[in-house]
Amino acid sequence: MAVVTGYIELKTRGECQVVDVTAEVSNKLKSSGLKAGIVTVFCPGATGGVSTVEYEPGLIKDIPEFFDRIIPKGRYHHDDTWHDGNGHSHLRATLLGPSLTVPFADARLILGTWQQIIFCDFDNKPHHRKLVLQFMGE
Amino acid sequence: MAVVTGYIELKTRGECQVVDVTAEVSNKLKSSGLKAGIVTVFCPGATGGVSTVEYEPGLIKDIPEFFDRIIPKGRYHHDDTWHDGNGHSHLRATLLGPSLTVPFADARLILGTWQQIIFCDFDNKPHHRKLVLQFMGE
Amino acid sequence: MAVVTGYIELKTRGECQVVDVTAEVSNKLKSSGLKAGIVTVFCPGATGGVSTVEYEPGLIKDIPEFFDRIIPKGRYHHDDTWHDGNGHSHLRATLLGPSLTVPFADARLILGTWQQIIFCDFDNKPHHRKLVLQFMGE
Repeated sequence: MAVVTGYIELKTRGECQVVDVTAEVSNKLKSSGLKAGIVTVFCPGATGGVSTVEYEPGLIKDIPEFFDRIIPKGRYHHDDTWHDGNGHSHLRATLLGPSLTVPFADARLILGTWQQIIFCDFDNKPHHRKLVLQFMGE
Repeated sequence: MAVVTGYIELKTRGECQVVDVTAEVSNKLKSSGLKAGIVTVFCPGATGGVSTVEYEPGLIKDIPEFFDRIIPKGRYHHDDTWHDGNGHSHLRATLLGPSLTVPFADARLILGTWQQIIFCDFDNKPHHRKLVLQFMGE
Repeated sequence: MAVVTGYIELKTRGECQVVDVTAEVSNKLKSSGLKAGIVTVFCPGATGGVSTVEYEPGLIKDIPEFFDRIIPKGRYHHDDTWHDGNGHSHLRATLLGPSLTVPFADARLILGTWQQIIFCDFDNKPHHRKLVLQFMGE
């Protein structure tokens, strides 16, 4: 049993950009040498979230439209503290959550055929992001 | 320390059907022989989600009504790609999330007395689902 | 590789109280003696949720206002079962989710500089809560 830590570096433009990181997670799993276990995909930052989706052009438009509807841009109490206009980004990230745990077996991620791992950058400005992949297994 | 992979097979009718899978997870934990660790309950599919709830008839009606309200059935960009009318199913699954991690100790899941592990099938058609249980511990 | 179970005890007043538990998780990590791995923060109870946020006074007001808006207090089917008026608490907890998994390395939680681990007590009455911290690693 071992722990292997990996990172994914991303340049994002923000405002609910949805990035497919499945290939990177899968590649890091291969180089970890682990066969069975779990990987935690984690965003160390308060304006990004992680989940899965069928990564196709329609849903990549639907997701930002959904967040625009339930947590619209606008005035939040967060602005009273920092005046950076990204209260909506923080609320969206808290709601979606910063961590996802995906099982693997036979050295392959156990995902549905039409299911990809996504990082959502909710911030209102571009970022250089570094996601954490914590592999644990044998 | 060991990894034990289990599966739960379910026949679901979809449209936000909420299924209590606590007993199956608990039974698989017993047969794993592990005493302390975590289990990741994962849906390998982009139209299902996992969480916990007090599984009683009222909330089992409240949950679909909530999702009908914040992510109504209707027209989404996803339909432009596949024309299968389940854009709402995908968005709901991404929001709730496909994975849940539950700790166990003394060979028992650590859950509240009134807290059950649920799978929500959000798709708009029946499915034969196979959830993954990844037990890790000692 | 080892499993170390810890607990955080909290007195909460409920109604979407947001509690920063980062220091407690970090302290328990230090006393666990583990250097690399993951910690699962879990609420064993159906009216609490776990996530991360930048813990500052503005967002601590924004989060309850957000939940009041998308899952308002009021009449839910849950009340037909128990008549305890906390249907909204249950739905909010199911949506946010009871578990969060955070990686650690070099004996430190890998979190963003402005990112704290939060427990949200959604119930409509005060509680004595006991969160579970399941550390796994080496």
